[in-house]
Amino acid sequence: MATLIDGKELAKSIREKLKQEIIDLAQKYPGFRPHLAIIQVGLREDSTVYVKQKERAANEIGIEITLHKKDSTISQNELLNAVNELNNNPSVHGLLVQLPLPEHIDEKVITEAVDPNKDVDGFHVYNIGNLAKRHNTPTFLPCTPKGIIEMLKFIGVEIAGRRAVVVGRSDIVGFPMFMLLTRADATVTLCHSKTQDLPEILKTADILVVAIGKPEFIKGEWIKPGAVVIDVGTNAIEDNSRVSGVRWVGDVDFVSASNVASYITPVPGGVGPMTVAMLLDNTVQSAKKFWSID
Amino acid sequence: MATLIDGKELAKSIREKLKQEIIDLAQKYPGFRPHLAIIQVGLREDSTVYVKQKERAANEIGIEITLHKKDSTISQNELLNAVNELNNNPSVHGLLVQLPLPEHIDEKVITEAVDPNKDVDGFHVYNIGNLAKRHNTPTFLPCTPKGIIEMLKFIGVEIAGRRAVVVGRSDIVGFPMFMLLTRADATVTLCHSKTQDLPEILKTADILVVAIGKPEFIKGEWIKPGAVVIDVGTNAIEDNSRVSGVRWVGDVDFVSASNVASYITPVPGGVGPMTVAMLLDNTVQSAKKFWSID
Repeated sequence: MATLIDGKELAKSIREKLKQEIIDLAQKYPGFRPHLAIIQVGLREDSTVYVKQKERAANEIGIEITLHKKDSTISQNELLNAVNELNNNPSVHGLLVQLPLPEHIDEKVITEAVDPNKDVDGFHVYNIGNLAKRHNTPTFLPCTPKGIIEMLKFIGVEIAGRRAVVVGRSDIVGFPMFMLLTRADATVTLCHSKTQDLPEILKTADILVVAIGKPEFIKGEWIKPGAVVIDVGTNAIEDNSRVSGVRWVGDVDFVSASNVASYITPVPGGVGPMTVAMLLDNTVQSAKKFWSID
Repeated sequence: MATLIDGKELAKSIREKLKQEIIDLAQKYPGFRPHLAIIQVGLREDSTVYVKQKERAANEIGIEITLHKKDSTISQNELLNAVNELNNNPSVHGLLVQLPLPEHIDEKVITEAVDPNKDVDGFHVYNIGNLAKRHNTPTFLPCTPKGIIEMLKFIGVEIAGRRAVVVGRSDIVGFPMFMLLTRADATVTLCHSKTQDLPEILKTADILVVAIGKPEFIKGEWIKPGAVVIDVGTNAIEDNSRVSGVRWVGDVDFVSASNVASYITPVPGGVGPMTVAMLLDNTVQSAKKFWSID
């Protein structure tokens, strides 16, 4: 049976370290307080849940968080103005615009409008370009893949020279995950919706990261015995035995995968909490940079 | 026996098309003339050869080319000034700084100083970031991988759904090649110096691109029968039977690979001429953009 990678517990210990770091720095540098600004457009229920998680976690560790709620009818230009205002506010160290945005707004334009030096989500083309260029250093790494690397370090798995497979080629997870594993000297195959013979390719993976949004799609029999399995998916499926009527599952069929993997992340409680912890970490690092603290 | 992919011939036909396009556009838009500026620092013999190739090819098709030679003792600031001057010169549509630069100059700083809208090499972090973000469109694609995609289109090989292996993870070839093949819906594995079991991985490749600078390193018996083999390497090896004392070979052992591949690029006369043709293409496309020609 695979060992669970407890993302909740690991994220908690990271948050505690960050909390102490903020306390220590505030003593040494009076007035030091990392500040994360979030713009939320509209009232999407899932966005509200995610924003609340970030708010709670930030507050808990002493990061100032300001939430800027905008009506879903806001024009692109008005939203750009709101972004620019926070870009220009020297007390703000991290700025993110909660995605997705309403259809009349071009997400690309808004994402690129965020000051790359406050882009704690790590989505700006400038940060992604610096991630893609091997000898450059991005100011921020996208939170989910950054959190996954932390998990791999935590369990002590060797990455260099190992085979890795990333399933899903999103800008937010799949692609930056590919880059981070390649930078760590793994040999990585990037799979996606057009990939043929996925099971055969998965069999080569010492490290498998799945981020496709398809409930329980990856079967245990496709996985190489002893592989480390990181499941980024969080999918609601109907479950009448629950009061809520749903339960959350990953992209990996947990039961069958647990029988072959050496390590596996649960859903929920695996990757999710790490993503939030890395957002906090990016915000603290950004504040230190603004304060010229090494 | 593999069919040769004649990059020299294909590049020639692309240059002829570009030449005609420039003639036609100059008739329609009096004064239209694409202009490529090259900065060369120092007197490296190989750089001089490459710059001459570009000069000759540009002149031949009606692109204006200006060569700005700088002493190898130029300071980084002086070089930055030279770059900025050409950035600000509205008659210049394409600007490249021939690499490598002398050791006292930070190549990263110089590469990022080039206006992304004139970056016909496609090396700027902004262009690489837009290449890495799946739904963005880079203003320019790096010339070598762009030329390789043209070759694959020319021979009519299907890319979508096929397995591809790229060996070498340079910013200039390996990484952007990985991205372009993934964008074309291939399933790509990126191999490098830390990859173990390279022969086993190569056996999965319907399309194999090698850019590692190791003479005749890849053996025919590692290659999947029927694969398309693209050899980016150009390595000089000693050959006393030649007047020059050297001959040029690729990263692939041509003789043994020809016996198993369906298509293969020769060295020289394969990828090299395509790279130069794509530089010209980028320059013409840039001039059209400056003239707001669709």
